[in-house]
Amino acid sequence: MSELKWIKDGSVTSPIGFRAAGISAGIKKNGRKDMALVVSDCDADGAATFTTNQIKAAPVKLSMQHIKGGIIRAVILNSGNANACTGLQGIADAKTMTEETARLLSLKPRQVLVCSTGRIGVPMPIDTVRRGIAKLAKKLAVDNGHNAAKAIMTTDTFPKEAAVSVTVLGKRIVIGAMAKGAGMIHPNMATMLACVTTDAAVEPSALRQALAEAVDLSFNRISVDGDTSTNDTVVLMANGLAGNALLTAAHPDFAKFRTALLALLKKLARMIIEDGEKITRVIDLRICGAASAADAKRIAEAIARSPLVKSSWCGGDPNWGRLMDVAGYSGAKIREELVDIYYDGVQAVKGGIASPTPLAKVKRVTAKPAFTIKIDLHLGRGDYSLLVNDLTEAYVTFNKGE
Amino acid sequence: MSELKWIKDGSVTSPIGFRAAGISAGIKKNGRKDMALVVSDCDADGAATFTTNQIKAAPVKLSMQHIKGGIIRAVILNSGNANACTGLQGIADAKTMTEETARLLSLKPRQVLVCSTGRIGVPMPIDTVRRGIAKLAKKLAVDNGHNAAKAIMTTDTFPKEAAVSVTVLGKRIVIGAMAKGAGMIHPNMATMLACVTTDAAVEPSALRQALAEAVDLSFNRISVDGDTSTNDTVVLMANGLAGNALLTAAHPDFAKFRTALLALLKKLARMIIEDGEKITRVIDLRICGAASAADAKRIAEAIARSPLVKSSWCGGDPNWGRLMDVAGYSGAKIREELVDIYYDGVQAVKGGIASPTPLAKVKRVTAKPAFTIKIDLHLGRGDYSLLVNDLTEAYVTFNKGE
Repeated sequence: MSELKWIKDGSVTSPIGFRAAGISAGIKKNGRKDMALVVSDCDADGAATFTTNQIKAAPVKLSMQHIKGGIIRAVILNSGNANACTGLQGIADAKTMTEETARLLSLKPRQVLVCSTGRIGVPMPIDTVRRGIAKLAKKLAVDNGHNAAKAIMTTDTFPKEAAVSVTVLGKRIVIGAMAKGAGMIHPNMATMLACVTTDAAVEPSALRQALAEAVDLSFNRISVDGDTSTNDTVVLMANGLAGNALLTAAHPDFAKFRTALLALLKKLARMIIEDGEKITRVIDLRICGAASAADAKRIAEAIARSPLVKSSWCGGDPNWGRLMDVAGYSGAKIREELVDIYYDGVQAVKGGIASPTPLAKVKRVTAKPAFTIKIDLHLGRGDYSLLVNDLTEAYVTFNKGE
Repeated sequence: MSELKWIKDGSVTSPIGFRAAGISAGIKKNGRKDMALVVSDCDADGAATFTTNQIKAAPVKLSMQHIKGGIIRAVILNSGNANACTGLQGIADAKTMTEETARLLSLKPRQVLVCSTGRIGVPMPIDTVRRGIAKLAKKLAVDNGHNAAKAIMTTDTFPKEAAVSVTVLGKRIVIGAMAKGAGMIHPNMATMLACVTTDAAVEPSALRQALAEAVDLSFNRISVDGDTSTNDTVVLMANGLAGNALLTAAHPDFAKFRTALLALLKKLARMIIEDGEKITRVIDLRICGAASAADAKRIAEAIARSPLVKSSWCGGDPNWGRLMDVAGYSGAKIREELVDIYYDGVQAVKGGIASPTPLAKVKRVTAKPAFTIKIDLHLGRGDYSLLVNDLTEAYVTFNKGE
């Protein structure tokens, strides 16, 4: 079977040739860590995915240009300020961050990516940030991955990081990653950032393909509140220091790399959902039997946006009528009399109406902190899964503002 | 100017020739009123609009057939059970409701429409309903409009009814209406039902046109939680007893009828929003300067669905970054650097970034229980308005389930 191995206390510095740092620069008023730096000791092939939001934060705009250069040596990250909707000054500030990082590490600015998360529309305290970068450069170390993961947290309640190893082309390679999820220091966007490192040598186009695919099946399959942020960024650096012969998309071992990368990003995506803002339940939602995959996705995403459905999950109420209702208005093709709904395999709806299963049995499932919901439309082969959570009173309190 | 006059204590029985009743039949366990009947003394031209949800409740399916007959004499309504996702038995039960009403009033079943609201997926207690219809038939009276309005309430905190008069073709005509909004006896769908009556004589196709237009600009311009119910229905009966010559769409006075009908439905729509589940603020949201009306609508509806935006309204926090973010992912065309945002005319965003207005001044607006937000995209002439409310902790508690 798979030789995939999880590394104990894994982080972005688990692969060979990566150093990191995480410090408190003073962007956050409460003194918590707010800046991180991840650096590869030698040239690394870069790949990245960015938010699809038309309004992109300044660091996203700049990083989208820099990634075109192909070689990435460092990623500078901050929490406490999104540097979004900040106009030309915001772009200048993001540039300063890459230039300052490059200067201190003797790199070209173009080899540095920048990621920010925090409140939108507030100017960057750029002098504070500049001093933070100087401090980070001094603290770079191979055992500092955990501090970097802590420094990108906003109101995440735990750091999200892991590393996995697998053998490709006869060499053991390692992939490490850190991510931040749905949280805010000031009430803010649910920004998702992730930085992935690997010592594998992977042909650049294969690397981009593997990242795009893994992001689509992990971070793009979670929903906390249906809001797509201005700042979402996932960066991957591959420095080749594991010493494997260059892995191409055509090689049989490429599947092993893809599987390991996907497993790692899925692990982090689940951590993000489990640490969703003030949630009490995690639901593995699957729509199958849809007329098309696009239809299955429509229903899953409409359910993930419904405050009525998500409130009932909070209360442990198997109110399947709300699922039927959302499926009906989602825009997907549906035939009411064919719909079956299961909670952890227990059938609640059969042919569009209540199944003979006693409601108490379904309630025992919905009372649990984590369960699956499967909606089978019996129309075709369209299939889509999404990891979601409930809507709680505390979420509203948390996001009300100062 | 307009000679439109609001009628004191107006109801569905304000127009000539309508009787109504509202009683407790026992569908609701708490003894509150749960069945209503509205009857025209003579043949009335009917018009109706129904939910666009693909999953339609049994009463909706049946009423969609009956309205094709053109002549409607009565509408039988119940709260406490939606009769949705109830299969063939649900259809049979809805038929029983129209047949029983027709039998007692010496009408044809086809001249009766039926509306239900309540929890989805629960069989109708049809014997209780049958006894309720018998009781309603005995209580029909011209001064019973208010009781009918009370009987369609679920967790609405006040009944929603009004009546307006206007002179067309030299005769004073009256339009009355009752509606129910977003509430639930058992946690349930936010179903919207409305019954409109008029003694005007209006050419049937003009009547349908006027209703469709008025519904589009009133009930279709409000959003409590973004969920479109399986049961939404608006019915209009016009019996011509005011004695005006038949009003056609081509006649200059048709505009007066349309204006009066629209004013009435807008009044009821605002009542529904003001009585939205556990809300604390009402926001008149307007998107203008969009590349198209469809784009303006996309942004307005995405904002109405965003839990982050709606939570910040609850807290009185002018977190305009969240509005920018939603506009960016809504799918509408947008140029960040052109966007202006105003709260009650106070400019918070100018050219996509914070305006020089002190934040405290914007906060004085967002602290109010009702205010306007205007987002001007400066791209074209697309314009769309929506009446929305905030998301509160109490909404979640209310919808969590038993």
